[in-house]
Amino acid sequence: MIDDPPEEDVFSILVATDTHLGYEVDHPVRGNDSFVTFEEILHIGRENDVDLILLGGDLFHLTKPSAETLHRCMSLLRQYCMGDRPVSFEIVSDQEKNFENTTQKVVNYEDPNYNVSIPVFSIHGNHDDPTGQSNTSALDILSCAGLVNYFGKCVDVTDVPINPLLLRKGKSLLSIYGLGHIVDKRLCRLFEAGKVNFYQPEEQHDDWFNILVIHQNRAARGVKGYIDESALPGMLDLIIWGHEHDCRVEPEFNATKNFHVMQPGSSVATSLAEGESLPKHVAIVKIYKKQFECTPIPLETVRPFVFRDANVSEVLMENPKDLKSLTEKIEEGATKLVQEMIKEALAKKTGHPKQPALPLIRLRLFFEDEGDMINIVRFNQKFEGSVANPTDLLLMKKGIADKKVKRDVLAREVLADILNGEQENWDVKIEDYVQKYFNEQEDNGNDLFRLNVLSVTGLNAGLSRMVDLQDNNAIDFIVKYVFHCPRIS
Amino acid sequence: MIDDPPEEDVFSILVATDTHLGYEVDHPVRGNDSFVTFEEILHIGRENDVDLILLGGDLFHLTKPSAETLHRCMSLLRQYCMGDRPVSFEIVSDQEKNFENTTQKVVNYEDPNYNVSIPVFSIHGNHDDPTGQSNTSALDILSCAGLVNYFGKCVDVTDVPINPLLLRKGKSLLSIYGLGHIVDKRLCRLFEAGKVNFYQPEEQHDDWFNILVIHQNRAARGVKGYIDESALPGMLDLIIWGHEHDCRVEPEFNATKNFHVMQPGSSVATSLAEGESLPKHVAIVKIYKKQFECTPIPLETVRPFVFRDANVSEVLMENPKDLKSLTEKIEEGATKLVQEMIKEALAKKTGHPKQPALPLIRLRLFFEDEGDMINIVRFNQKFEGSVANPTDLLLMKKGIADKKVKRDVLAREVLADILNGEQENWDVKIEDYVQKYFNEQEDNGNDLFRLNVLSVTGLNAGLSRMVDLQDNNAIDFIVKYVFHCPRIS
Repeated sequence: MIDDPPEEDVFSILVATDTHLGYEVDHPVRGNDSFVTFEEILHIGRENDVDLILLGGDLFHLTKPSAETLHRCMSLLRQYCMGDRPVSFEIVSDQEKNFENTTQKVVNYEDPNYNVSIPVFSIHGNHDDPTGQSNTSALDILSCAGLVNYFGKCVDVTDVPINPLLLRKGKSLLSIYGLGHIVDKRLCRLFEAGKVNFYQPEEQHDDWFNILVIHQNRAARGVKGYIDESALPGMLDLIIWGHEHDCRVEPEFNATKNFHVMQPGSSVATSLAEGESLPKHVAIVKIYKKQFECTPIPLETVRPFVFRDANVSEVLMENPKDLKSLTEKIEEGATKLVQEMIKEALAKKTGHPKQPALPLIRLRLFFEDEGDMINIVRFNQKFEGSVANPTDLLLMKKGIADKKVKRDVLAREVLADILNGEQENWDVKIEDYVQKYFNEQEDNGNDLFRLNVLSVTGLNAGLSRMVDLQDNNAIDFIVKYVFHCPRIS
Repeated sequence: MIDDPPEEDVFSILVATDTHLGYEVDHPVRGNDSFVTFEEILHIGRENDVDLILLGGDLFHLTKPSAETLHRCMSLLRQYCMGDRPVSFEIVSDQEKNFENTTQKVVNYEDPNYNVSIPVFSIHGNHDDPTGQSNTSALDILSCAGLVNYFGKCVDVTDVPINPLLLRKGKSLLSIYGLGHIVDKRLCRLFEAGKVNFYQPEEQHDDWFNILVIHQNRAARGVKGYIDESALPGMLDLIIWGHEHDCRVEPEFNATKNFHVMQPGSSVATSLAEGESLPKHVAIVKIYKKQFECTPIPLETVRPFVFRDANVSEVLMENPKDLKSLTEKIEEGATKLVQEMIKEALAKKTGHPKQPALPLIRLRLFFEDEGDMINIVRFNQKFEGSVANPTDLLLMKKGIADKKVKRDVLAREVLADILNGEQENWDVKIEDYVQKYFNEQEDNGNDLFRLNVLSVTGLNAGLSRMVDLQDNNAIDFIVKYVFHCPRIS
């Protein structure tokens, strides 16, 4: 970017995603984590005097956030984003099209009844997507409260037109394309069928800096289980990728497509996977005409998290008193290792007064012989009061710690986890069992067991939603969906 | 009230209660009813240029309203209550005290970031009371959105100080005491123990017109099962009584206490009880110094509802073709009666374009001989498409229609229903069974069956909440409550 572009021509945007508000809200230790860091993010926005905040989905952890979660989120937005500060960019697109599927048809800062200091723009993720008969998302509530501009809401999943928000600040023109989460398989097919259309402005066609905000799988997760960057149009300049929790905030250049991709990652660890233990960031993106500059900002309130893989053979201590049994030795060695990890976690502390004290610790201990298993519950209890997650600190796994995969690029980590049967394995297994059961029944000619209303895939999708997102209307929704929409998948 | 008091000295208040937003929101026919009438109420407020809207609780039907319900409510409030119209009264009380237990400490129209045209003030009812670890009510969400001023929120139920909102408009002084719903038994004991304190302003002590907004049982419902008007302080001038759904909007004078009580009633029928079939109203209350005037305004969008009790002997048709069986004759007679009721309901239609077309019909048919029972499901099916509630139109009850009770004053109706075993009988029975079960176990010396954490009453209260209000945290809440609060009941 050129040195010192005139400030009145430069967009300053705070980019964040996957704040998962309300994650573990009832946990006695971790209950506040998501809110504390969300507040830090808003604080960063205000301190840096940004023009707007751009969120990549999963603002909330649950499709139906509790009253407490909604209320705390709204209180923070009200505190940080309302006020007298003038907004110094204008929207020149047809807002009726930008907000076609939300009740609020005008950005909050243009509404004469609201005094907005920092407009927040967000798409939905898979955790806070529209649901129920009326396709209402928790973001619709925030939009109605004048606190968030909810864009990229698509309700017809057979045809996805994307009309960008067109923003002008001085000499800079910025178009923001939003695409709220759609099931990856479906979205892949929509791309293949040419049903995802990016409508570029005709005026000053080549002068716009084009951002896409998307919330999909990026890491390879089986056939059509993720969105390949190559499916996205080359006219884009910067893609802000939500959903993936690993922080890869520094924009990565895709030479084939000639665009950059940045993946800010989550601001709260919602699983004890290795990717969540990377230092978490948000970023300030400055845009001047067709140039941009990204400044990652480390989040200082995130609970320290140390993840490690080890083999039983590595933790076995050579103990002088060899009266001890093998498992006692393993336990002693693992204890030492966890103590080291706690030290490492505490060394990560930033000094921010709101950063929580107790760290998250996850040790994956690999064993080959069942005799090497130690009592996990008893082991974890030792760390009660020293870690934030005493109930799930230690995971014992049969096999050998795959250091190769571990050293592999982060993008492959999630895939590796699936192959290793860890991440999401519960879902996958249950779904496989359901599928297998119905297949068997059909093979045996038990026609009575054939599903008439939903396909097995549909049933599984509904069950997953009910369990993962506590969305009790999921089955209902899917049944209606199947009957009202032409089948794509 | 004196003729033509100067307008700048007169408070004009729209009073409504129990709008139960979201009642039957997923019902294919009745889903919109609560919202349609809520909009009518807001419209009345705007058309009559009222200073404020005062709600008596149960704005929402469920403790945790769905995103759709919240969103629709907020959209309507935003549409009708935000705007440039100036608010012409001032608040002179200490708002920190008025809003002690809510996050917003200032009325919405005084917040420079919100442009409020009609301030709405509400207490909570038993359907939208604070819940969860953080004592959050759906009204807190509306308060945070700048749409409602939520007052009368008490979180310590061992001591209830009531600091009134003190409003001044020209020469009139109005104090509004708010008391959000508390379980009746508990509140009775708090009154007896002198723990409910109304803090009157010292300045111009006698010049205030004193309103109390309350949401409790008013009709007698067993010992300490309701609040007796005699428990309320005589310094009050007008009591606005929520919770009771029968519309008794004309203020009734209590000569002993020298105050008036008005009971606006619900704006949507949430049960098929006779009281809900009374014409529904809101009211505009005008206050000039110590005088007031109440103008009831009939609601024109309420779904017509006709309720009737009849004995089998009354509907038996003398049919020339006496081949027909007794039950066929009863069925034919009841059909005729229902047809009459539908006609009566249609005659009640107001012509309001938004009033729903299909009426609610409830026929309670009393029989003495089991042989007089007709097939209810088949009977109801005849009226599919002609009524809004085909699945529960007919109720058959053993006994004789108690016309005396029916003709009795409305206040006794609910009590009568309980005695007749109709209203709330499901609850009462289940609770009784639970109680009986544990009593028996204890009598038999089965100490293992003694409850250790919750009393049977507590368990029952929690279960009722879970079922009636879909509050999944109810048990959790009650357990915490028992451990943290000194026992009163």
